[in-house]
Amino acid sequence: MKGMIVLSEPKVALIMGSNSDLPSLTGCISLLKSFGISVEAHVFSAHRTPEAAAAFAKSARENGFSVIIGAAGKAAHLPGVLAAYTTLPVIGVPIRSSTLDGLDSLLSIVQMPKGIPVATVAIDGGDNAAILAAQIIALSYPCVAEKLLAHKEAMVQEVAEKDLALQSALSTI
Amino acid sequence: MKGMIVLSEPKVALIMGSNSDLPSLTGCISLLKSFGISVEAHVFSAHRTPEAAAAFAKSARENGFSVIIGAAGKAAHLPGVLAAYTTLPVIGVPIRSSTLDGLDSLLSIVQMPKGIPVATVAIDGGDNAAILAAQIIALSYPCVAEKLLAHKEAMVQEVAEKDLALQSALSTI
Amino acid sequence: MKGMIVLSEPKVALIMGSNSDLPSLTGCISLLKSFGISVEAHVFSAHRTPEAAAAFAKSARENGFSVIIGAAGKAAHLPGVLAAYTTLPVIGVPIRSSTLDGLDSLLSIVQMPKGIPVATVAIDGGDNAAILAAQIIALSYPCVAEKLLAHKEAMVQEVAEKDLALQSALSTI
Amino acid sequence: MKGMIVLSEPKVALIMGSNSDLPSLTGCISLLKSFGISVEAHVFSAHRTPEAAAAFAKSARENGFSVIIGAAGKAAHLPGVLAAYTTLPVIGVPIRSSTLDGLDSLLSIVQMPKGIPVATVAIDGGDNAAILAAQIIALSYPCVAEKLLAHKEAMVQEVAEKDLALQSALSTI
Amino acid sequence: MKGMIVLSEPKVALIMGSNSDLPSLTGCISLLKSFGISVEAHVFSAHRTPEAAAAFAKSARENGFSVIIGAAGKAAHLPGVLAAYTTLPVIGVPIRSSTLDGLDSLLSIVQMPKGIPVATVAIDGGDNAAILAAQIIALSYPCVAEKLLAHKEAMVQEVAEKDLALQSALSTI
Amino acid sequence: MKGMIVLSEPKVALIMGSNSDLPSLTGCISLLKSFGISVEAHVFSAHRTPEAAAAFAKSARENGFSVIIGAAGKAAHLPGVLAAYTTLPVIGVPIRSSTLDGLDSLLSIVQMPKGIPVATVAIDGGDNAAILAAQIIALSYPCVAEKLLAHKEAMVQEVAEKDLALQSALSTI
Amino acid sequence: MKGMIVLSEPKVALIMGSNSDLPSLTGCISLLKSFGISVEAHVFSAHRTPEAAAAFAKSARENGFSVIIGAAGKAAHLPGVLAAYTTLPVIGVPIRSSTLDGLDSLLSIVQMPKGIPVATVAIDGGDNAAILAAQIIALSYPCVAEKLLAHKEAMVQEVAEKDLALQSALSTI
Amino acid sequence: MKGMIVLSEPKVALIMGSNSDLPSLTGCISLLKSFGISVEAHVFSAHRTPEAAAAFAKSARENGFSVIIGAAGKAAHLPGVLAAYTTLPVIGVPIRSSTLDGLDSLLSIVQMPKGIPVATVAIDGGDNAAILAAQIIALSYPCVAEKLLAHKEAMVQEVAEKDLALQSALSTI
Repeated sequence: MKGMIVLSEPKVALIMGSNSDLPSLTGCISLLKSFGISVEAHVFSAHRTPEAAAAFAKSARENGFSVIIGAAGKAAHLPGVLAAYTTLPVIGVPIRSSTLDGLDSLLSIVQMPKGIPVATVAIDGGDNAAILAAQIIALSYPCVAEKLLAHKEAMVQEVAEKDLALQSALSTI
Repeated sequence: MKGMIVLSEPKVALIMGSNSDLPSLTGCISLLKSFGISVEAHVFSAHRTPEAAAAFAKSARENGFSVIIGAAGKAAHLPGVLAAYTTLPVIGVPIRSSTLDGLDSLLSIVQMPKGIPVATVAIDGGDNAAILAAQIIALSYPCVAEKLLAHKEAMVQEVAEKDLALQSALSTI
Repeated sequence: MKGMIVLSEPKVALIMGSNSDLPSLTGCISLLKSFGISVEAHVFSAHRTPEAAAAFAKSARENGFSVIIGAAGKAAHLPGVLAAYTTLPVIGVPIRSSTLDGLDSLLSIVQMPKGIPVATVAIDGGDNAAILAAQIIALSYPCVAEKLLAHKEAMVQEVAEKDLALQSALSTI
Repeated sequence: MKGMIVLSEPKVALIMGSNSDLPSLTGCISLLKSFGISVEAHVFSAHRTPEAAAAFAKSARENGFSVIIGAAGKAAHLPGVLAAYTTLPVIGVPIRSSTLDGLDSLLSIVQMPKGIPVATVAIDGGDNAAILAAQIIALSYPCVAEKLLAHKEAMVQEVAEKDLALQSALSTI
Repeated sequence: MKGMIVLSEPKVALIMGSNSDLPSLTGCISLLKSFGISVEAHVFSAHRTPEAAAAFAKSARENGFSVIIGAAGKAAHLPGVLAAYTTLPVIGVPIRSSTLDGLDSLLSIVQMPKGIPVATVAIDGGDNAAILAAQIIALSYPCVAEKLLAHKEAMVQEVAEKDLALQSALSTI
Repeated sequence: MKGMIVLSEPKVALIMGSNSDLPSLTGCISLLKSFGISVEAHVFSAHRTPEAAAAFAKSARENGFSVIIGAAGKAAHLPGVLAAYTTLPVIGVPIRSSTLDGLDSLLSIVQMPKGIPVATVAIDGGDNAAILAAQIIALSYPCVAEKLLAHKEAMVQEVAEKDLALQSALSTI
Repeated sequence: MKGMIVLSEPKVALIMGSNSDLPSLTGCISLLKSFGISVEAHVFSAHRTPEAAAAFAKSARENGFSVIIGAAGKAAHLPGVLAAYTTLPVIGVPIRSSTLDGLDSLLSIVQMPKGIPVATVAIDGGDNAAILAAQIIALSYPCVAEKLLAHKEAMVQEVAEKDLALQSALSTI
Repeated sequence: MKGMIVLSEPKVALIMGSNSDLPSLTGCISLLKSFGISVEAHVFSAHRTPEAAAAFAKSARENGFSVIIGAAGKAAHLPGVLAAYTTLPVIGVPIRSSTLDGLDSLLSIVQMPKGIPVATVAIDGGDNAAILAAQIIALSYPCVAEKLLAHKEAMVQEVAEKDLALQSALSTI
C-alpha cells in the first residue's frame, strides 16, 4: 500500500463550548498560526446547538480540515459529540470550570467508549492541543514538521535560559 | 394559568448504550411495568449511532413518551445527547464499567452545563430511575400516583420484616 | 389506562438548608417564574429542623406543589429527607461549600438507596433544577412546554451570538 | 458544677439501614456485649421508614440508651437523621457498598453541618464503633472502663504474639 | 451492672498540631465554655513533640479530662496518636491545609485500624467537635444535657429566622 | 503553503512497559492490521531501559513510523518519555494496574506539561489508540480513510443488531 | 567538612503494622538480603503498641540500623510515628487494605508535616522500599553500590527478554 | 561485610522542572545549607531537555553528589526520569500546579514501577526533602547527624513556644 497525495493548506477547526473559554485557548490559536496552520474557531454547544455541532463535524473533512480541536468544561461532551460525526482525528481539551478542578471535564472527554477515540490533552492544555495538531499535520506537511523541530529546539534553549536565571536567583538565597 | 389535558397511556423510553447494560436495568423495566407504565427500550450509542439517538429524542414527545431514561457508562454522554434534542425530562443512570467504579459515568452525566439538565440517579440506580419516572408521570396520572403510594407503603412493610429477621439473627450472635 | 385531570396553577417548592445558599439559587427562582411557575421558597434544615422539613414534604402534594427542589451542601441530606416523606419528584442541587469542592454534596444527594430517588443536577446547578422542574410540569401544562421550547430556541440564538462575538475576538489574536 | 448520678445498666442502640449490613456489624455487637453493654439492634431506613427512625431517636434517651450507632451505605443519611432527633452521641459507621468503595458513605456521614455532629469511624469500622461507644459509657461506668483497659492490654499481647509469629515466618524467606 | 459516680467539673482537652490552627477552633472553645465545660488547650505535635503528646494523653484521665479533641491537618496523626495512649474518647477534627482540600487530613484521622477509634467530625468541624464532646459529657452531667437541649432549640429558632429573612429577600428577586 | 508527498507503507510503533500488558493490547494490534497498518511492538521501560526507549523514539521518524503508541501503568511515564524524544504524534494508553483503578496511570499520562503533548485515550483503551492512529494516518492514506469509514459503518450495524437482540431479550422480562 | 567513618555490617529494620502484611513484604526482605543487607523485622502497631514502636525507633541508630522501613495500611501512622522518634531515614510503604484502594494509606504516609519526612514509595511497593534502602546504604558501602548496579543491569536484560517474548507472542495475534 | 570510606564534602543536587518552582523550594535550599550540605540547583525538564536531565543523573555519582532531589508538577516525570539514570537515592517533591491540587504530581512521582524507587515527600514538601536528604547523608557524616539532632530539638522548643503563644491567645476567646 503506497500513496501519493497533493495537499492544500493545512487547516484546523477549534470548537469551544462558550466564548468564555477563549482566554485559555488564545495560546492554542497563536501556536497553530506560528506553525503555518490556518485556524477556524467556532462556538458550538454539544447540548444547546447539537445540530450545528454535528453538521460542522460531518462536513469538516470535505471542508478541508485535517484536525478538530474541541474544548469544553464540566460534562464536556463536545469533543466526543464531534468525534461521533467524523473520522478526522479529534483532540479534546478539558477546561477547568468552577468546581471539581477539571476532573469532571477530563473524565468526560478521555473515557470515550470503544470505537470513537478523543485524543485528550491536559486540563486547560490548549497549547499542547495545538502542538499535537501540528504533529499530526506534520506527517504530510514537511514545512510544519520543520517548524515543530524549531519549536522543540527553542524549548531546549528556553530551559537553558531558565537554568541561567535560576543560577542568578540562587545567589540571593 | 389553569390547564386541562386528556392523557393517553403513559409511556417511557429506556435508551441504553449497549445491550450489555441490560442486566443492571431489568429491575427498572419491571418496576415501570408494575406501575402501569409502558416501556420501549432501545440500544442507541451517543457516539456510534448519534443520528439514531438524536432522531429518537427529537420525536419522542410526539411519539407519546413522557420521560426518557438514558443509561450509559464511562464517558456517558448518552443521556446528555438525548436531552439536547428534546424538552422532555431525561433521567440519567450512570453505569459502572471496568474502571473508576462509575465515577466517570456519574460526572459525565450529572455535571451538565446550564440549559440542558439531566435528572441523575445513583450509579447503577436503574430501579430509582423507574421510580423517578413514575413520580413524574404520577403528576398527571392518579392511578400511577396510587401505585407509587402502595409501593412506598410496601417498602415500610419490607423494612419492618427485615427488622424482624434481624431480631432472629441477633439471637445467634 | 387513560386519564383526564384538571390542573390548577403549577407550583414548585424550593427548600434550602440555609439562606446563605440563596445567591446560587436566584437564577433558579427567576427561571421558574419566567416559565410561569409559582415558587415558594423556605429555609429548612434536615438536621436542625427535621420535623419542619418532614411536615412540609408530607403535605406538599395536597398543598398543590408539583415538584420539590432541595438544595444543600456538605453531607447534603436535605433532598433525600424531603424525598423520604413524599412521592412527588424531588430535585437535588448539590451546593459547593468550603471544602471538597462539592463532591461531598454531590455524593450525599445522588447516591440514594433503592426506593427513594432524588433527581440530581450539577453542583451549584440551580438553573438546571428550574429547567428540569419546568420539563416535568410541562408534561401537563402545554403553556409551560411552549415556554421551554422558546427558552431552548433562545439558547440556540445565544450560542450563535457568542460565535459571532468569537469571530470578532479572534481578529485580535 | 459538680454532679452525682445513679446509673442503670448501660445500653447502646445499633441501627442499620438493612439487615444485609449485619455481617459487617457482628463484631460490633460481640464487642459491646464483651464490655458488659446491652445492645438493641434494629433495621430502620432514613428514607423508607423515616418516621420509625425519627421516633426511635427521639425517645432513645428516655428509653435508657446512652449511645446510638448508625450504620449505612451509599448516601448514608441514617446516622445524621438519627442525630437530628436526639442529643445523645451518635456514632456513624460508613458501610462500603457496590460502588465507590465507601467514599460516598464516608462523606455522607462525616461531613455533617454545624450543629449536628456524627462521630464517624472508619469505613466498615463497626468494631471501632463498639469501642468508641464503650469509651463514652466508661466515663460513668468504672466497670466498663476496666474492661476497656483489659481489652487494650490484650491488644498489646496480641501484637506481641504476631511479632513472634513473624519471627517464625521470617526464617522461611 | 449498676453504678454510681460522683463527678467533678467536666473538662475537655483540645490539642492542636500548631497554633496556626487556632482560628478554625475558636468556635469550638467558645461552644464548650457555653456548655459549662472547662477547656484546656495545647499545641502538641504527633511528630515533633511525640513524647509530650503521649505523656498528656496517658495522664489525661487521671488529670480529670473526660474527652480529648485532637485537631490536625495533612497526614493528621495527632488524634490517632493521642488515642493510642488513652481509653478516653478522642474526637478528631481534620483541618484543611494548603493542598488536597482536607481529604488527606480526613482519611488520616477517620481510617483508624481496628482497636483504636477516633470519633471524626467534618473537615474544619471544630464546632461540632465541641457539641459532640458535650453530648458525651451530658450523659453524666444533667446540666450539660439541659444546655445541649437549649442549644438545639435555639438552632430551630435560628433556622426559622433565616426562613423569615429568606421571605424578605425573595421579594427582591 | 501547499505540499506533495510520496508515502511508503504506513507503520505504527506500539511500545509497552511490560509484556504483561499485551493482553489488553491485542485488540489494538488486530485493529491496526485490519486498517492495513503495519505494527512493530516492543517492550521498553521508561525507567529500566530509558536509553533504549529514547533511542527508539529518536529514530522513529526516520525509521518510517507515523505514530507511536505508548501503553503503561502506575506512574506511567513511558508515553511522555517517548514524546520527549520525537515530534511524531504519541498516543498514550493508561493501563489499569493493581491499585487506584488506573487513575494514577491516566493522570501521569494526560497531565503533560506545556510543550510535549501526549494524545491520551481511555484507561485500558488500546482499541481506541488503534483507531486514533488510523485517523491520523488516514489524513495522507486514502485507503486507510476508506477502511475507517467502513469500520464506522460497521459499528452502526453492530449497534442496530444489539438493539434487535435487546428487543428479543425484553420479551422475557 | 571532611569525614571518615568505619562501618559495621549494614542493617535495616522492617516494621509492619500486622503480620498479615508480610505477604506483600517478602520481596522487600529477599531483595535486602540479596544486596547483602541484614534485615530485622517486627510487628509493632502505632496505635496498639505505641510505646514499643517508639522505643524501637529511639534506639534504632545506636542499635546499628541505617534505615527503618515502615509498612502500614488505612490511617497508616506507623512510618510517621517511627520517624518522630529518630533522625534515621524512614521509608514508608502504603499497604492497600480492604477499602479505598490504598489512597488512605498513601496520603497518611506521604503528607507528613514540615520537619519530619517519610520517604514514601508506591502503594504495596515493598520491593522499591528495599532498593531505596540499599541506595541509601550504598553511599557508604561500595559493595552494596556494586550489587545495586548489577541489579539495575539485570533489569535491562530482563526487559530485553520480555521484548523477545513479546516478539514471539505477536506472531500469534 | 565491613567497610571504611573517606568522604569529601556532602553535596546534593536539586533539579526542578522550571524556575517558577523556585519559590516553593527556597526553604529546601536554606535547610540544606544550614545542615552544612552544598546544593547545586538546575532547571532541567524531563520532556523538553530529556538528554540534559539524563546526562546529569548519569554522572551525578562521579560528580560527587550523594542525593538528587527532583521537584515537578502535573505529570511530574522528572524525579522518575532522573532515577532511571542513577543508583543514587532520588527524592521527589510533587509541586502543586493550577489544577487537581497536586494529586496528579503526587501519583506521577510516588507510583513508580518495581525496580526504580523515588523517595516521595508531601506535596510542596521541599523542606522535608532537605531534611530527608540530610538524614541520608548523616549516615556517613556525623557532623550532619549532629545538626539534624539540633534541628529536631529546636522543633521541640518551637512547639513549646507555640503552646505558650496559644495560652496567651486563649485568654482572649
